[in-house]
Amino acid sequence: MTTALTTREEQAARLDAADPLAPLRERFLLPGDVVYLDGNSLGPLPAAVPAALADVVSRQWGTDLIRSWNDNGWWEAPLRIGDAIGSLIGAAPGQTVAGDSTSVQLFTALSAAAALRPDRTLLVTDPGHFPTDRYLAQAVAERRALEVRRVPPADLAPFLAAEGARVAAVSYAPVDFRTGELYDMRALTDAAHRVGALVLWDLCHAAGALPLHLDTLGVDFAVGCGYKFLNGGPGAPGYLYVARRHHEAFETPLTGWNGHADPFGLSREYAPAPGIARARIGTPPILSLLALEAALTVFDGVDMADVRAKSLSLTAFFLDCAGELLAPLGFAPVTPSDPARRGSHVALRHPHARRLARGLADRGVIIDMRAPDILRFGVNALYTTHQDLFSAARRLLDVTREAPQGPPPPSSGPVT
Amino acid sequence: MTTALTTREEQAARLDAADPLAPLRERFLLPGDVVYLDGNSLGPLPAAVPAALADVVSRQWGTDLIRSWNDNGWWEAPLRIGDAIGSLIGAAPGQTVAGDSTSVQLFTALSAAAALRPDRTLLVTDPGHFPTDRYLAQAVAERRALEVRRVPPADLAPFLAAEGARVAAVSYAPVDFRTGELYDMRALTDAAHRVGALVLWDLCHAAGALPLHLDTLGVDFAVGCGYKFLNGGPGAPGYLYVARRHHEAFETPLTGWNGHADPFGLSREYAPAPGIARARIGTPPILSLLALEAALTVFDGVDMADVRAKSLSLTAFFLDCAGELLAPLGFAPVTPSDPARRGSHVALRHPHARRLARGLADRGVIIDMRAPDILRFGVNALYTTHQDLFSAARRLLDVTREAPQGPPPPSSGPVT
Repeated sequence: MTTALTTREEQAARLDAADPLAPLRERFLLPGDVVYLDGNSLGPLPAAVPAALADVVSRQWGTDLIRSWNDNGWWEAPLRIGDAIGSLIGAAPGQTVAGDSTSVQLFTALSAAAALRPDRTLLVTDPGHFPTDRYLAQAVAERRALEVRRVPPADLAPFLAAEGARVAAVSYAPVDFRTGELYDMRALTDAAHRVGALVLWDLCHAAGALPLHLDTLGVDFAVGCGYKFLNGGPGAPGYLYVARRHHEAFETPLTGWNGHADPFGLSREYAPAPGIARARIGTPPILSLLALEAALTVFDGVDMADVRAKSLSLTAFFLDCAGELLAPLGFAPVTPSDPARRGSHVALRHPHARRLARGLADRGVIIDMRAPDILRFGVNALYTTHQDLFSAARRLLDVTREAPQGPPPPSSGPVT
Repeated sequence: MTTALTTREEQAARLDAADPLAPLRERFLLPGDVVYLDGNSLGPLPAAVPAALADVVSRQWGTDLIRSWNDNGWWEAPLRIGDAIGSLIGAAPGQTVAGDSTSVQLFTALSAAAALRPDRTLLVTDPGHFPTDRYLAQAVAERRALEVRRVPPADLAPFLAAEGARVAAVSYAPVDFRTGELYDMRALTDAAHRVGALVLWDLCHAAGALPLHLDTLGVDFAVGCGYKFLNGGPGAPGYLYVARRHHEAFETPLTGWNGHADPFGLSREYAPAPGIARARIGTPPILSLLALEAALTVFDGVDMADVRAKSLSLTAFFLDCAGELLAPLGFAPVTPSDPARRGSHVALRHPHARRLARGLADRGVIIDMRAPDILRFGVNALYTTHQDLFSAARRLLDVTREAPQGPPPPSSGPVT
């Protein structure tokens, strides 16, 4: 085992030394005593954020006050930042808006999709979809007398062959939030389109982690959060993408005044703004929104293909470590070894997942777990190193060997 | 006129010298060269915010990272800050949640109110209600096959006498956002309740400006924003109050995972959290939310009755100045002179309102205007002085006398 460890440690050092993206780590303020592998839950603090936010607070809010809505571009922020996110997800400008939580954006997207297919009665989601996607699909379905069908992505084609003509929309995520499995966005999008259904993608675990091509694939709707691989800060505003071809027809259920065609005209009746602006809803949380904007500068000059290549190198290395070092201790990988089917985190199954995650945290390795038994190791090519992953594997080995092997302890509060 | 000016200036100085709340101005970082009378649109920067937010960013996010959801109280923030707002609006703890925009909270409140009165078909709003209140009422009405009736508060009693049995909910604001008129919340609430209707109050222009007594009045729902008299920063999260007696029955239309009974259990079906927590929706914008929390400390130890007394002194003084100095130049007050019917801003009507607001801004007096012809002068007893208002009146006199009297120019962009 000592030899295996030494070999892996040397391999990690070699891979990091040859990493062309290594200098990007300087764009983050990572605490020195921590190996952070939970950026798929909360991205770390980009170095550009503190000064940018201090300027927003002290100069823009404190000194320029209300005038900042015009003079410092607050009013345009949801569309400007939407476009910045758009450039990371393959969306041309004018189709993405940022401002509300992913859950609220999901409600808009699902409602709008259903309204565009009024004669169809089914809404398809993944049974393994993140809870909020499932809950909002159910809520929208109940309001519109639709039926939710939970169909795993692998079963979509046969399902559509039988029921496709009744499907209004398919709501999936490219990356399974637990297993880290990456689905074939193009194949699934095409399959839905062939039967006349619309497609909504939840990009929470994909945007900023791998190249996305919404326009090229002809995706209809997409949503995502700002706080995972986009590093926008805790609860950073989510975003909504609506393909331009739907802009004339799409209806927002949340007809807030910011989305009005003439928001300052104070007119009596709601008239939607042209384009994606109609999805603006209310006044957005500017401090959080502008922190996200500053955070997005970590992607300046970065090619997402390079990000993807390094991400795959990182996850492959960790899966190799896990197979060699951890499998004998009861760890089972649930993330596919096929790189084409792997997102940007690795999930290992272990019956003592919760206790082990805590043990790792005590040793300065931050990961997370998803009930009941999944440990998630998130990598972000912008700052994660192979040596981080080696440290995590070695310390997990230590924690597993040293810890008492009792029953899993009960949860003592939220870990998000 | 010179004598009148001198007299008013001396009066302002006397009133300020006798003001027991004068020291509270130190709790704000107001730019020295500006008279800020637009806190009813965007409250100024509280002195406590920059350091608090820097701590949230650098220590809580930067160093503690994901652990802050537990260790720094992020998870509880919407309820904790909801309670802090609750203490300003007469709501006992556990009935108020903060996190989403006022528009989103309105959607929840209107939907929930309608669902609690399923056999009734009318939704009553004020024709002068803020646009987003009207648009969301229309949106909810369309979804639930209700009819919106626009009834001015002054006409509510006769309307209810005729149609009361059909009214599901009455949605009003205590303070008219244009005129500054304050309505009788108790009388209107009681009138609605007598016919079995529910009451929703939009507190945007009231919370933090005057004492409110939601629990005592038996109000059913309330919403409001965090960025006006609560000084929480641009787009600061709004809040939703739901009276405890409705907690068992109320249904949220936006069934986000943060409002689930077991949010980290990842269960398949939505099960609402007990109490107000079910209205949490998605992950809230923590940076904006914790800035709001720091901002609310400006109310520490402050009696809202004192705030109200000073606010009335300020608006009375300005109305007196306007009557004496400005009326001859074509300014007509639209805010009631009766203190019982006055909120915390004064509105003057003038055909050149837009140009005059700009002229005042050029002279360092920040107010706002509402199309087509209303100038709003907002006062906040925590920092506004009588001398601020004297300066505003005097400079408005100058601007009006000096400016060319052409036709009103077209709008050149949003002023919020």
